[in-house]
Amino acid sequence: MTHWEDFYNTHLPPADFEDNRSLLKEFCERHNKLQNRIVLVTSGGTTVPLEHNTVRFVDNFSAGTRGSASAEYFLDHDYAVIFMHRHKSLEPFTRHFTGQQFFDMLDIADNSQSSTIAIKPDSVDVFAPVLAKYKIARETQMILYVNFTSVVDYMWLLRAACECLAAFDERAVLYLAAAVSDFYIPEDMMPTHKMQSGDGAPTISLQLVPKMLAPLASLWVPHAFVVSFKLETDENLLIVKARDSLNKYKHKLVIANVLQTRKHRVVFVTPTDSYELHLSREQALQGLEIEEPIVADVVQKHGDFISSAEQRQ
Amino acid sequence: MTHWEDFYNTHLPPADFEDNRSLLKEFCERHNKLQNRIVLVTSGGTTVPLEHNTVRFVDNFSAGTRGSASAEYFLDHDYAVIFMHRHKSLEPFTRHFTGQQFFDMLDIADNSQSSTIAIKPDSVDVFAPVLAKYKIARETQMILYVNFTSVVDYMWLLRAACECLAAFDERAVLYLAAAVSDFYIPEDMMPTHKMQSGDGAPTISLQLVPKMLAPLASLWVPHAFVVSFKLETDENLLIVKARDSLNKYKHKLVIANVLQTRKHRVVFVTPTDSYELHLSREQALQGLEIEEPIVADVVQKHGDFISSAEQRQ
Repeated sequence: MTHWEDFYNTHLPPADFEDNRSLLKEFCERHNKLQNRIVLVTSGGTTVPLEHNTVRFVDNFSAGTRGSASAEYFLDHDYAVIFMHRHKSLEPFTRHFTGQQFFDMLDIADNSQSSTIAIKPDSVDVFAPVLAKYKIARETQMILYVNFTSVVDYMWLLRAACECLAAFDERAVLYLAAAVSDFYIPEDMMPTHKMQSGDGAPTISLQLVPKMLAPLASLWVPHAFVVSFKLETDENLLIVKARDSLNKYKHKLVIANVLQTRKHRVVFVTPTDSYELHLSREQALQGLEIEEPIVADVVQKHGDFISSAEQRQ
Repeated sequence: MTHWEDFYNTHLPPADFEDNRSLLKEFCERHNKLQNRIVLVTSGGTTVPLEHNTVRFVDNFSAGTRGSASAEYFLDHDYAVIFMHRHKSLEPFTRHFTGQQFFDMLDIADNSQSSTIAIKPDSVDVFAPVLAKYKIARETQMILYVNFTSVVDYMWLLRAACECLAAFDERAVLYLAAAVSDFYIPEDMMPTHKMQSGDGAPTISLQLVPKMLAPLASLWVPHAFVVSFKLETDENLLIVKARDSLNKYKHKLVIANVLQTRKHRVVFVTPTDSYELHLSREQALQGLEIEEPIVADVVQKHGDFISSAEQRQ
């Protein structure tokens, strides 16, 4: 496996990197002055291009549901939120409605002077609270949106965010919900042009992506409350792999879930403990999202973590 | 390469296949009775799962811009439109606005009884014509939306659509703008669970997907006006590959484009001719989309094609 420093040495930052770095810096400095708690929520999957002029890529299954829902709940708990997400994946607030659902909620009224377009009265009750929360988050500048596409973009943004978050010490949470590729094709092994089907069936050789959780937890934000996620399709691997990860990277919490049941069941694995958190059938039918209790639990743990750090001082 | 019949024999149809087939049948029968012209627009990329419980997949770069824009212009020309698109890719009309753009166009007004939410007056001029066209297309039932994710889903839907379109003879256009994978992993060569990074760097062996344009043009819709697309990153391959395709499949038109310039330049390649269609800098700045002249040209050719078929009878 490539060492993490070599990864940055051999892969250039994305074109919009300096712009995003400035945004991150400004956002973090402002909220640090205000002594706010802050969370970096990563969300959605990363791509691995198979060609320089990218026509094909390997992607990781993730619509961004977990991350975008969690970002809303962190805002409810008065956290400043850096929402670092896959371009075009689900976003907080807007995630509740598709494009056609928006259009179908709208009525056009024409009078002699001009047209007006309004949300149909029977949709206002559903829509108004979501829109109001979106507007408050924007106006109070409690949320910053930054986005990535490839795993290389993601790595550069992640490190830049950590550089800004380090100043928060224990007040920062890293909530790493993005589905980051374990594998990639290094720059120098990638063909320039689209692979041609006339050349026959290709074989793609992938390399392991370095595990950034190692430098992140030990070097970049050593005082932060770091939460990672594990998605498996095999129930039997879940706890073992979560425990391995905690042993290796010495962070605070792994939230483990199985692909097929992830919307109503997760397992919290800490260095000393593991327990399940799930939605009952009634709760699910009432529209409760599992991200609400997940975030409440993380916020509780984070509060305890800050208190015990203060007591040590 | 697998023969196309073997592909259908070894890959099951997607779960929602029968529902979509009923929708296609009803839509086509209605418009055939009305003697309407009809177009099947395919749009967006297909995925190739790397695991049965899909965490990872190979994807084809395509947001669905070409297909979703073209569908709007075909509606302008009074075609009935089957919009067969990648799940969550761009759709006609809603494509003009992202979720945040929608939210930012809206104002909430509270009075004593209730809230009202309306589009801000300065956004109405931009939004009203798009919304009006969307509503007319829905109310007159001139558009049917069906969607796919994997290349297998796509193949099943494509054949089902053709079965319904055959009855239109020359009145049907197939406008195959989707970016369909050339490669896939057959069912029986796919691992069940998520590939583990602990097992080292994997090698993925892909197989060629059978070229469905062959049975489509010669057997499924032999009388229709079939248009295929070619996307290359290497300019030098463009015309040669388009011409090869026409020689092999005997269809009517290839619209060829280079990845980097596809938004303002395409090449129309027919069995006897090839010519360029491009937007000038001023046209692009005025917001003209190249899909407008592309569709106008296809509609013109399709009209000529119908006339010459009538003269033969």
